[in-house]
Amino acid sequence: MKVVTTIDEVRQQVKSWRKNGATIGLVPTMGYLHEGHQSLMAAAKQDNQKVIVTIFVNPMQFGPKEDLASYPRDLERDKNACQQMGVDLIFCPSASEMYDANFNSYVNVNGLTDALCGKKRPGHFKGVCTVVTKLFNITQPDRAYFGQKDAQQLAVIQRMVSDLNIDIEIIGCPIVRESDGLAKSSRNSYLSQHERLAAICLYQSIECAQQMIQTGEKSVQTILTAMKNIINAQPLAKIDYIEFVDYATLTAVDRLNQDSLCALAVYIGKTRLIDNFIYHH
Amino acid sequence: MKVVTTIDEVRQQVKSWRKNGATIGLVPTMGYLHEGHQSLMAAAKQDNQKVIVTIFVNPMQFGPKEDLASYPRDLERDKNACQQMGVDLIFCPSASEMYDANFNSYVNVNGLTDALCGKKRPGHFKGVCTVVTKLFNITQPDRAYFGQKDAQQLAVIQRMVSDLNIDIEIIGCPIVRESDGLAKSSRNSYLSQHERLAAICLYQSIECAQQMIQTGEKSVQTILTAMKNIINAQPLAKIDYIEFVDYATLTAVDRLNQDSLCALAVYIGKTRLIDNFIYHH
Repeated sequence: MKVVTTIDEVRQQVKSWRKNGATIGLVPTMGYLHEGHQSLMAAAKQDNQKVIVTIFVNPMQFGPKEDLASYPRDLERDKNACQQMGVDLIFCPSASEMYDANFNSYVNVNGLTDALCGKKRPGHFKGVCTVVTKLFNITQPDRAYFGQKDAQQLAVIQRMVSDLNIDIEIIGCPIVRESDGLAKSSRNSYLSQHERLAAICLYQSIECAQQMIQTGEKSVQTILTAMKNIINAQPLAKIDYIEFVDYATLTAVDRLNQDSLCALAVYIGKTRLIDNFIYHH
Repeated sequence: MKVVTTIDEVRQQVKSWRKNGATIGLVPTMGYLHEGHQSLMAAAKQDNQKVIVTIFVNPMQFGPKEDLASYPRDLERDKNACQQMGVDLIFCPSASEMYDANFNSYVNVNGLTDALCGKKRPGHFKGVCTVVTKLFNITQPDRAYFGQKDAQQLAVIQRMVSDLNIDIEIIGCPIVRESDGLAKSSRNSYLSQHERLAAICLYQSIECAQQMIQTGEKSVQTILTAMKNIINAQPLAKIDYIEFVDYATLTAVDRLNQDSLCALAVYIGKTRLIDNFIYHH
């Protein structure tokens, strides 16, 4: 496994692989890798002859009051996690390697970014789209793997790839959870022991919603009220948003008459966690 | 020479060329081809084994009051012009092939687009950057050729390619002029006989500026006054802008102490023409 920090080194490696006709899978990450990331690597490994993992905490996708400075980093641990999964190349650039002093180009998706996290984190998806475009152009993969946990991100990237005719297959992979249901996230490392216990309320509210749906409930209002009750019962939790949106357009829905995404963001103490499930009509 | 209208056909052709190791040059145009475009094709032909010309009047880069509907089109003539230059593939898609109903992704360069045409044509360069990104992703060329006549466009695209790590060499080609100095442009076809004679004032003002510079003039104010006097003496002409800007940043300069771009846009009747020259310090 190679670990490189410059764009030129990646290009050189990719060109030599391409010359030999190898297919390439990309797993873009912000590092502090967990089993969720590793499931993406496993999928990439299965579909492609070479796997690239990028590790870059992208400043552009963090708001001025967000957790860029404290975002967890541990490159040595990440290297081991990649090695274990048979990754071929890690690209872990510095911010200045990715953004030179005159940097001034941006990729953005409108519409889909108006809802959910896009509404709560202005500029976030512009940062995501821009860095993902850059990573795509640097690594030129056949396929790229993203977690369904960041459901809006996945939808936005799929829209961007389709709109801009990017010749890469985007593959969404299922959420990986802890044994008690908490979705795996690098940000879980922020949680104190008490907060960790409280954080299960996200998944509990999802389980409750899924049970209501299974017994025939169609009213989004009714389901949301039950979900909010579960989360609000937890003193350490504060809801940022819970919404049901149309899966294709991410616009709000009133009744479950179509494929829908139920997405939630909840503060547990100072840590903002997200989770979601998809309702297939 | 092949002429295709769908993205799939281009991809298929490009993939087959790539398999055989051919290099590819791209000349993106809005059609109504003239000797300026043909000089780009000649350069592309010289540097690459295969040449693609795209012909697409991109609605996204026209303002609501601009000349999208009347922009000159003549595909049969364009085919001949390409054939004559040994072009291998023409891609002339419909607007719906390029932009589906849910299209919502945009590429933009800030800063460089604040000046000159960017100030006068809001949204224009966002349209240019978006369509050029799409054409790059569809045709995946080694090199792409743009005219220096659209100097700001060339600067913006070079910035975009560098910022987004697009693996394509951008080549700017010199302005091609009529025998009386008028820069070749598809929009010259709008000019009546009287307007065509009046249109020479753009180049006359450039010649005047170049002579003043040659004899040691450094004050932008003094040069601009002389240029404006020449154009204002022409009753059919109305200045949209004349500016000297730093060649790297496109910000205004007062004195010629650095590589600079002198760019002008002038209405001749209802037709907006642009021209420019570069001052090398």
